[in-house]
Amino acid sequence: MPLTPEQQAEIDEERAQTRTTRRVVSEGMEEHLYTAYPVLDHGFVRVIDYMGDDNAITQAARVSYGKGTKAVSNDEGLIRYLMRHWHSTPFEMCEVKFHVKLPVFVARQWIRHRTANVNEYSARYSILDREFYIPEPEVLSAQSTINNQGRGAVLEGAEAARVLEILKGDATRSYDHYEEMLSQDGQDGLARELARMNLPANVYTQWYWKVDLHNLFHFLRLRADSHAQYEIRVYAELMCQLVKDWVPFAYGAFEDYRLGGAQLSAKGVECVRRMVAGEEVTQETSGMSKGEWREFMGVVSDPG
Amino acid sequence: MPLTPEQQAEIDEERAQTRTTRRVVSEGMEEHLYTAYPVLDHGFVRVIDYMGDDNAITQAARVSYGKGTKAVSNDEGLIRYLMRHWHSTPFEMCEVKFHVKLPVFVARQWIRHRTANVNEYSARYSILDREFYIPEPEVLSAQSTINNQGRGAVLEGAEAARVLEILKGDATRSYDHYEEMLSQDGQDGLARELARMNLPANVYTQWYWKVDLHNLFHFLRLRADSHAQYEIRVYAELMCQLVKDWVPFAYGAFEDYRLGGAQLSAKGVECVRRMVAGEEVTQETSGMSKGEWREFMGVVSDPG
Amino acid sequence: MPLTPEQQAEIDEERAQTRTTRRVVSEGMEEHLYTAYPVLDHGFVRVIDYMGDDNAITQAARVSYGKGTKAVSNDEGLIRYLMRHWHSTPFEMCEVKFHVKLPVFVARQWIRHRTANVNEYSARYSILDREFYIPEPEVLSAQSTINNQGRGAVLEGAEAARVLEILKGDATRSYDHYEEMLSQDGQDGLARELARMNLPANVYTQWYWKVDLHNLFHFLRLRADSHAQYEIRVYAELMCQLVKDWVPFAYGAFEDYRLGGAQLSAKGVECVRRMVAGEEVTQETSGMSKGEWREFMGVVSDPG
Amino acid sequence: MPLTPEQQAEIDEERAQTRTTRRVVSEGMEEHLYTAYPVLDHGFVRVIDYMGDDNAITQAARVSYGKGTKAVSNDEGLIRYLMRHWHSTPFEMCEVKFHVKLPVFVARQWIRHRTANVNEYSARYSILDREFYIPEPEVLSAQSTINNQGRGAVLEGAEAARVLEILKGDATRSYDHYEEMLSQDGQDGLARELARMNLPANVYTQWYWKVDLHNLFHFLRLRADSHAQYEIRVYAELMCQLVKDWVPFAYGAFEDYRLGGAQLSAKGVECVRRMVAGEEVTQETSGMSKGEWREFMGVVSDPG
Repeated sequence: MPLTPEQQAEIDEERAQTRTTRRVVSEGMEEHLYTAYPVLDHGFVRVIDYMGDDNAITQAARVSYGKGTKAVSNDEGLIRYLMRHWHSTPFEMCEVKFHVKLPVFVARQWIRHRTANVNEYSARYSILDREFYIPEPEVLSAQSTINNQGRGAVLEGAEAARVLEILKGDATRSYDHYEEMLSQDGQDGLARELARMNLPANVYTQWYWKVDLHNLFHFLRLRADSHAQYEIRVYAELMCQLVKDWVPFAYGAFEDYRLGGAQLSAKGVECVRRMVAGEEVTQETSGMSKGEWREFMGVVSDPG
Repeated sequence: MPLTPEQQAEIDEERAQTRTTRRVVSEGMEEHLYTAYPVLDHGFVRVIDYMGDDNAITQAARVSYGKGTKAVSNDEGLIRYLMRHWHSTPFEMCEVKFHVKLPVFVARQWIRHRTANVNEYSARYSILDREFYIPEPEVLSAQSTINNQGRGAVLEGAEAARVLEILKGDATRSYDHYEEMLSQDGQDGLARELARMNLPANVYTQWYWKVDLHNLFHFLRLRADSHAQYEIRVYAELMCQLVKDWVPFAYGAFEDYRLGGAQLSAKGVECVRRMVAGEEVTQETSGMSKGEWREFMGVVSDPG
Repeated sequence: MPLTPEQQAEIDEERAQTRTTRRVVSEGMEEHLYTAYPVLDHGFVRVIDYMGDDNAITQAARVSYGKGTKAVSNDEGLIRYLMRHWHSTPFEMCEVKFHVKLPVFVARQWIRHRTANVNEYSARYSILDREFYIPEPEVLSAQSTINNQGRGAVLEGAEAARVLEILKGDATRSYDHYEEMLSQDGQDGLARELARMNLPANVYTQWYWKVDLHNLFHFLRLRADSHAQYEIRVYAELMCQLVKDWVPFAYGAFEDYRLGGAQLSAKGVECVRRMVAGEEVTQETSGMSKGEWREFMGVVSDPG
Repeated sequence: MPLTPEQQAEIDEERAQTRTTRRVVSEGMEEHLYTAYPVLDHGFVRVIDYMGDDNAITQAARVSYGKGTKAVSNDEGLIRYLMRHWHSTPFEMCEVKFHVKLPVFVARQWIRHRTANVNEYSARYSILDREFYIPEPEVLSAQSTINNQGRGAVLEGAEAARVLEILKGDATRSYDHYEEMLSQDGQDGLARELARMNLPANVYTQWYWKVDLHNLFHFLRLRADSHAQYEIRVYAELMCQLVKDWVPFAYGAFEDYRLGGAQLSAKGVECVRRMVAGEEVTQETSGMSKGEWREFMGVVSDPG
């Protein structure tokens, strides 16, 4: 359970208050506001604020004075057109702010997305909590034997047990030592900015993360992808659900054109044309390397 | 008059509607929403949306679960501390979206601020209106004789009259020709993306411009400055008033530490110390060039 | 002819000098350095400086101490892999700086690409030259009747002649008036920052533009595309040739996976699978709108 | 010793090779190229590549065709003017690429500077080395009693010894366990992307970091400052020396106007004017808070 009763009370109080505004409101997103949705064993994602809705995208694309067209269907069609043709600036007109609690090694991947605003809990200034990510047995996997950057089969019982014992033991000991070094009981107490260096990368941190919808889609495309590390993917997948309720037309277009779509190379386009015209194409006659051909076949053949 | 009755009606309709939200609300900013405040002869600035208030800045700085401290005075003190010590990320947690109508030559300066989101009215896709900026006589100035990049005295009557006649005549003729080239009456009609090249830089364009508070302050510091060109400065000055009502603590800190403050060089610090200690310092003994000394004296001497 | 003899002499002098460096050198790019390649009637592109080569991309991807692998073929394979899987940061490790002369309306499109560094010739500070873009008759097109944002057939002789006469006449008159307003002969002379507002959007400006290879590829993908306006496309096409000689492996991957490739939607992937499996698919059974289907068929059918 | 003999040989080989280029060369920077300058116990900074020199700054500011003015003194004056008046784009015309080895907790501060390009060694893909930052006794400090975010006095012998023992012991044990979990000897071996979570924040990582001079100055101003954490400051201070040899005029201006300068608030300007005019000003009559006054006095009084 990631929240203390005091934290939950603060959240409940915020949710209980409503105010009057002239701004556009996304009913779907209002429902999610402030709620801490759990992710992993101690993490969460909660929406703190948002700006805009589907209509804000088309309104900016048209640079209009009011709501623009009344016909909702026109909005959906325009949003799909904009997504299909790689128009990015109208999607930048929506903004969202999250409060996220996440393990440090996940935060280190996340922060590589630079076009966002971040305020992280400072371990120079404050003391971190005793909370560490310990994987569930079903995601405790071996190194992949075919992909240097991925996981293979789930570890067997005895090996899994040893790993979990190590992770838990080292986390406990590191945190005990962290507290011991910080303690001002009978000693000066090491500076926080130094003591934190003893904590492992599965310790939890938290931050406020604010991003526009275009850059959020870019993040989600890479991190909700099956090649992303599981521990960041679960955050991205949850955020997909929130975005779907916030801007349903934009999310629908994103799902169709980005998440579920595929990029063909010039050689891939040529092969598709030949195959559609009835020709049998093999890797040898495709002009592709083996790796490219395998990925290409993953796109054009029915996985069923 | 920048707005047609239809546009004014659309704005009035938007202002008349209120909705319920769980988000934080800035009462000062709610009052401004959608209103088109006139700037120059045909331009305007209006706030389309905003995210956050003063409290959102300190909430992010503290990475807190709810509103954080109840004491408003603590918020102001923390905001001033953050501004004084060049903390930028908490101010990035507020966002604002404007609809701006402005002459093209102003838009070309404005767009140099890259950390913002922009959707501009497209002259490839649409036809621009017949609206041109013609300066008021009191801002029709000669080239400065001391600053290559600035204005000097206001032009005398006859010269001013000649200039205004030229500007008006050329604008009218250019727009007549623009319409003539576009016309499909008895001819094919030139493509819009080509015809627009005949329009001068004082034609009005418009855009949606979205920016976070930190980058907006950076923009305002440069463009509300007395060295900025008058035609962009009037936009910046109006926006200062809007920001003041939106985030009064943050704006107060910005006014004190940035707008009204001054940067001293290492040599300047040394000279101030000597002067405060009672020594008489001259340009010759200051180690500064003449230009630096003049600027330095502008800071440390009472202009009265 | 865009260059004065003095400018050409400066360029020749720069090209004549060689220096010794320990940095990596791209022989292909060295040949292009400083040369002003003409674009449109008065424009040009010239490379002022560059950083890195193909090897710099793989070296950064590997975070290696020296040149990394000796096998050049490994570099090409890795670069293709990185491009295929949307790795962007290794391509950001190469940087290039251009000096570009271009009409203002092209500059206004160009500057929308924000992730680049720009220093533009200042018309507040300096006086612009009497140079205007006047299209060649073969690119003087009518408004497209099927695409609001594009060109249709080339204009017929008489209409074309009228348009060219207008463009030339207005440019000449605007510049005459610009000079007249600036003149300090018997009058004070209008400030440069004001006088420039009379110049039309086909006047030439120039800038230094510096960008990393990843963002340059993004620019080239959008601007060397057949939907881009002709007047910016010719700049992009020329720059493609320069990049090809600078980083041939990266450019080859870009050409295959981006320029010549295509994006399929989730519905598009599904249709391709059905078509490859021998099914006949029509717009009605595709689940796509008419616009989407037309674009999809443009990808999967042989244009021959 | 941070480098293996193989790594040192690779560096030596790179340094031994020279090539011919038409590009501008900074002799001061050529001397530093590729050399790994040690920082902390296992870290280093080395310059991998650079673009531009002092002259490139003024050349871009002038948008000139060749070297621009021949008078070097004019370049220095212009560079100082640009720095004094917050012109940022000319400084963006220089670029530099570093290879840095640094503890993870330092990397986490560093990466908050977003306007830069980064390729970090991947612990998903590769196995990290057994190298941890262990502070020297003279920088092993207690928590500051006056500043929540800082260090106080150096720890006494016995407490320091206990801290060092903890840090060394935990690092050793964590790395032993990391290897044990990864081992495929008699077991499957945990995926690298999971095993890394057991490593503490003082483990070393490395990256290629590329940045333009304007943003590098911003980084150096914040991180070479006395309030920055010691462990990042030593990197910044070393980089200051490299930049000084690369672009001496720009660095001189940076040192004078930024590093050694001070920002006065509006109230501070007012107080300086009163003090210079001979008035005695106290905190009570200054209008400043106690904190502001203390910082202000730190600027205007001679520390001697």
